[in-house]
Amino acid sequence: MVDLQKVLNAKFNKYEYHLTTKQVSLYALSIGCGRKDLKYVYEGSHDFSALPTIGVIFPGQIIVDIISEGIPGLEFDPMMLLHGEQYLEIKNPIPTQGIFETETKITGLYDKGKGALLLFDCLTSDKSNGKPIFLNRFSFYIRGIGGFGGPKQPVEKTEKIPQRKPDATFSQKTTEDQAAIYRLAGGDLNPLHIDPEMSKIGGFKVPILHGLCTFGIASRGVVEHFCGNDPSKLKNIRVRFSNIVYPGETIESEYWKVDDKVLFQSKTSRDGSLVLTNGIATIGSSTNSSL
Amino acid sequence: MVDLQKVLNAKFNKYEYHLTTKQVSLYALSIGCGRKDLKYVYEGSHDFSALPTIGVIFPGQIIVDIISEGIPGLEFDPMMLLHGEQYLEIKNPIPTQGIFETETKITGLYDKGKGALLLFDCLTSDKSNGKPIFLNRFSFYIRGIGGFGGPKQPVEKTEKIPQRKPDATFSQKTTEDQAAIYRLAGGDLNPLHIDPEMSKIGGFKVPILHGLCTFGIASRGVVEHFCGNDPSKLKNIRVRFSNIVYPGETIESEYWKVDDKVLFQSKTSRDGSLVLTNGIATIGSSTNSSL
Repeated sequence: MVDLQKVLNAKFNKYEYHLTTKQVSLYALSIGCGRKDLKYVYEGSHDFSALPTIGVIFPGQIIVDIISEGIPGLEFDPMMLLHGEQYLEIKNPIPTQGIFETETKITGLYDKGKGALLLFDCLTSDKSNGKPIFLNRFSFYIRGIGGFGGPKQPVEKTEKIPQRKPDATFSQKTTEDQAAIYRLAGGDLNPLHIDPEMSKIGGFKVPILHGLCTFGIASRGVVEHFCGNDPSKLKNIRVRFSNIVYPGETIESEYWKVDDKVLFQSKTSRDGSLVLTNGIATIGSSTNSSL
Repeated sequence: MVDLQKVLNAKFNKYEYHLTTKQVSLYALSIGCGRKDLKYVYEGSHDFSALPTIGVIFPGQIIVDIISEGIPGLEFDPMMLLHGEQYLEIKNPIPTQGIFETETKITGLYDKGKGALLLFDCLTSDKSNGKPIFLNRFSFYIRGIGGFGGPKQPVEKTEKIPQRKPDATFSQKTTEDQAAIYRLAGGDLNPLHIDPEMSKIGGFKVPILHGLCTFGIASRGVVEHFCGNDPSKLKNIRVRFSNIVYPGETIESEYWKVDDKVLFQSKTSRDGSLVLTNGIATIGSSTNSSL
């Protein structure tokens, strides 16, 4: 069922992604930007820019392949998969159009007893010059296939949120159609987010919002409050997906600045429960010399 | 300034358009469909279909060229152009993906005294088999260039709306971001619909909604009420653009069935004024044998 060495040695095809300025704008709209956010939605703006979390869309087809076909040495029921955590690093300024290429590498498979934790990296480069632009680290928890005698996950140090009121907050009302739009912009066409029959099988009353959409929304608060709305200052960002969001709910995010880091968490208006936890972003200097 | 023969003999490049199922879904969302309209927004639906007015997106680049570069023999200020009328004919079943090719031909240039009326046809075919799918007839009124001694427009017979209450109505609340999304789906990137500085020059308080978005919205009522939600029954549809819509307003459409025609008009919630007039659609038999 699980062949650890085979999994760690799995090879993946490179994937190409042709990014257009329309997709950059659509991505911004799909994480709650509106017509007034000209910098992010209008390709004719003098400072037109991609929001940094657009980096998560490039491995979209890879994720679809892994979910639908599994990985050599690792067979699982797609419905048993949970997207646990996401780390995104922005390595160079983000072009607003061009051809991108993504390479994938399994970096770990840990035995969690009841389930298994699969970690893999996707490195996305600008094909025109080979420059790395994004590193995505996906963390997938797969229920029901633990106990295969694999290594335990190393303990990770997590930053504690300070005992004070948040330094900033960011509130986004999602629409009932948020997932329907995000899936077209975000590359993740999993039917769980659109097909009521599939979400029912998953145990949800209606199709749920993509965790990566919530991630994009929460990141906008980081860019607005801690980067002076200069998205090139966001160097990396990480979150844990702790609960689901239904389209139409409001996502309330809270942020604390600690040195060059921003710690954050997000709650849903449904019942106030935390949907993103362990959020942490690193702020650096602008790479956009024209600003 | 106007060289009638040169205009009538103008040649245009053919344009290719690569349609994906994502664009079919995005087009539906951009004219007000929501997550529950699975037939139009979810490529995995058993009856996934393009809404027929998607036909207007294929000549998008041609319109941009005409507006930005003019036509040989006809120079004009793009800000003086008004999209007067639109006729769309659906000639064959609409594929939900593929490569389409559009040919353009000027069919008339009439002298309206103060302005000129330019008519042109765009015929869009499925490149894989050469089948014609859509005929678009655009009618552009260009202010300030009339009196060039050209022909008068032939009188057209228009159908009168019956003296009875509408047989059906269709109401669509647009969102403030409707034009921002429609422009990404609909191929018309004219800044008038997104850039507040451009719309101010045009005399509008904020960027206005695309007339073709309102056209798409009104057509949904035809499909829902008179085609039994089978979009392949809509054979052709025509409207006159009579007033603007601001994103966020509600569009109320009224329909009357007269033989195999549906006459319709649309009003805006802003002040009840008519935004689409002379609406007429022809209903035929389904071309979708699987339904």
